[in-house]
Amino acid sequence: MTTSLDPVHLTRNLIRCASVTPAEGGALVLLEDVLSGAGFTCTRVDRGGVANLFARWGDKGHAKTFGFNGHTDVVPPGDETAWTHAPFSGDLENGILWGRGATDMKSGVAAFAAAAVDFVRQTPPDGAIVLAITGDEEGDAVDGTTALLDWMGEAGEAMSACLVGEPTCPENMGDMIKIGRRGSMTGWFRVTGVQGHSAYPHRAKNPLPALARLVDRLASHELDQGSAHFDASTLAVVTMDTGNPATNVIPAECSAAVNIRFNDLHSGASLSKWLEEEADRAAAEFGVGIELKVKISGESFLTPPGPLSDLVARAVEAETGRSPVLSTSGGTSDARFVKDHCPVVEFGLVGKTMHQVDEHVPAEQIEQLKTIYKRILTDFFA
Amino acid sequence: MTTSLDPVHLTRNLIRCASVTPAEGGALVLLEDVLSGAGFTCTRVDRGGVANLFARWGDKGHAKTFGFNGHTDVVPPGDETAWTHAPFSGDLENGILWGRGATDMKSGVAAFAAAAVDFVRQTPPDGAIVLAITGDEEGDAVDGTTALLDWMGEAGEAMSACLVGEPTCPENMGDMIKIGRRGSMTGWFRVTGVQGHSAYPHRAKNPLPALARLVDRLASHELDQGSAHFDASTLAVVTMDTGNPATNVIPAECSAAVNIRFNDLHSGASLSKWLEEEADRAAAEFGVGIELKVKISGESFLTPPGPLSDLVARAVEAETGRSPVLSTSGGTSDARFVKDHCPVVEFGLVGKTMHQVDEHVPAEQIEQLKTIYKRILTDFFA
Ligand SMILES: [Zn+2]
Ligand SMILES: [Zn+2]
Repeated sequence: MTTSLDPVHLTRNLIRCASVTPAEGGALVLLEDVLSGAGFTCTRVDRGGVANLFARWGDKGHAKTFGFNGHTDVVPPGDETAWTHAPFSGDLENGILWGRGATDMKSGVAAFAAAAVDFVRQTPPDGAIVLAITGDEEGDAVDGTTALLDWMGEAGEAMSACLVGEPTCPENMGDMIKIGRRGSMTGWFRVTGVQGHSAYPHRAKNPLPALARLVDRLASHELDQGSAHFDASTLAVVTMDTGNPATNVIPAECSAAVNIRFNDLHSGASLSKWLEEEADRAAAEFGVGIELKVKISGESFLTPPGPLSDLVARAVEAETGRSPVLSTSGGTSDARFVKDHCPVVEFGLVGKTMHQVDEHVPAEQIEQLKTIYKRILTDFFA
Repeated sequence: MTTSLDPVHLTRNLIRCASVTPAEGGALVLLEDVLSGAGFTCTRVDRGGVANLFARWGDKGHAKTFGFNGHTDVVPPGDETAWTHAPFSGDLENGILWGRGATDMKSGVAAFAAAAVDFVRQTPPDGAIVLAITGDEEGDAVDGTTALLDWMGEAGEAMSACLVGEPTCPENMGDMIKIGRRGSMTGWFRVTGVQGHSAYPHRAKNPLPALARLVDRLASHELDQGSAHFDASTLAVVTMDTGNPATNVIPAECSAAVNIRFNDLHSGASLSKWLEEEADRAAAEFGVGIELKVKISGESFLTPPGPLSDLVARAVEAETGRSPVLSTSGGTSDARFVKDHCPVVEFGLVGKTMHQVDEHVPAEQIEQLKTIYKRILTDFFA
């Protein structure tokens, strides 16, 4: 067989599957059909109501196994009437493909699936290729890539390197490879005092000055100035609330929340400790109670520049003429889970319109992404 | 006529008038009936839907005119089933009179009305007695005592001294005379920045750290340490609000409110200027916008210790054996309006249960208050 799998056609069909997270929407069924037809062993790894697909070409547990990771679920389209092309139409017009998931990341999944299929058909390698595709990246991400990795561990499946196909380029195709991501966590503070009358503040215990002092301290603290591969960590105060409409009443409690994006100089635990210490300090200063609740969405991760990032960067440069920046910017991605299993980097197309109304991508960029992925496979197995 | 007007009976009848602010409820009709019968010239001075009663015995504009001021409106009873005696029953049981207004301040009005009636019947003075009674002290107080004073000015009515009959004693009858009150004002801040994603705080302009710093500064600032006749001024932060449930979003705006109770070292204008300066300072430091809205509920007032407070204190001591403290503590009262017309002090019974469920007063205390008021009239006209 010398036919080539068309990644634009596959992206269009995937867009037509309304897989709004965590709905499967037919997207994984379609991929399983395409991949099985090309000789991949496919397994649906569903957990907690979430659908995931594992596909392997070649021998299980081969020492040279290249993995691709991505997701077919998409964020909701919002007001569908605001779209110039219906969000699940997959309209292709003047070389532009429109629809929810056009950049994030049905195109990425289609491109690596097409690259893998063409590659094994044309030059079957001495090794294995694994595709771990989840239906739960945009949602809780509890039963998505994590479920796939858990299952792989139990089933004796492994990867020696992995590429996550999320959109990574800020402006132009080939701009940026992500070799890590900052961690993310949220802390909620609840300050409790004693209610009272505004005319007699000494008889009350106002929680608000304590919260203001605490928030001022957290917001003005410099966490770090960045590290070798990371920007500086940041803390954003996202809310402070009381809900007291009575100006003659000192309220009994108030609350605030902060969101921290942190680099490899910190961990969720070290930052939780810091928040706890600052809460205790303000509580002692003002004689109020301060409770802290923390949720760590993901620790930071880094695959230091090395063989994998070199491999990907060379392929990107060969196909685009651009020398990609190795970056750790942006939010979290499923690479935070994969990093515990093998070296992982992220490379995909330009993500400008992701999560927006009228999400779209030039069809040509999907073709180019497929070519880059195929070259990565060629070089990896060379 | 040598009959004596029973102030307990009159208080009971006033309690039975459900004059929840600003409703008249029959209370002023009843008082007008009693006072006209005793030779007082009565005029209803209603304005803006609020009922007020002006009553004078003696010549209009007499150089020696003693005034009493009080209110018949009451705060709402709240959950009536929580009361052991129905709030408008006026139940008298074992010498205790129960009901909304029992202390604040139907008893005070009844006591000065009874004192005035008995006094002019028994020893008609060379002078005049004025009763300015409002139905709007507990509400907006826009068309209450202010309306009475406006009307008096136009009608050529005047007072050479005035006693406000609000409950002033913290623990025991005769404890305290109020010779002034602190001022009261509220400032509302609205901080506006630029919304953004928590992962990229440098692309947003977070209004929350500016608000926290501003509030911390206002709350930790010592306004003063008190003055000759006043406690220290106080500032109470009463609310800080954002209402942003999304931890990955930096909000565009937030708000806070502070309530200030201030003594004669400040004015509403000087404090507004200070709040404005602090708002501008924080706005400049953080590059955000801060709007300030101010409402001055009342300036501080003081009738320095002198003839009027001496007169009242002597009467209190003669009848109770207690030497009253001259105080300026507590919230605002209508004395803040009267002070622009003549020297004014406040004296009344023990206010412990005012505004509470099961408001009540010993009947004996009402009798005693009447006796004190009558002695004040006797000494004033002596
Ligand atoms: Zn994505
Ligand atoms: Zn009152």
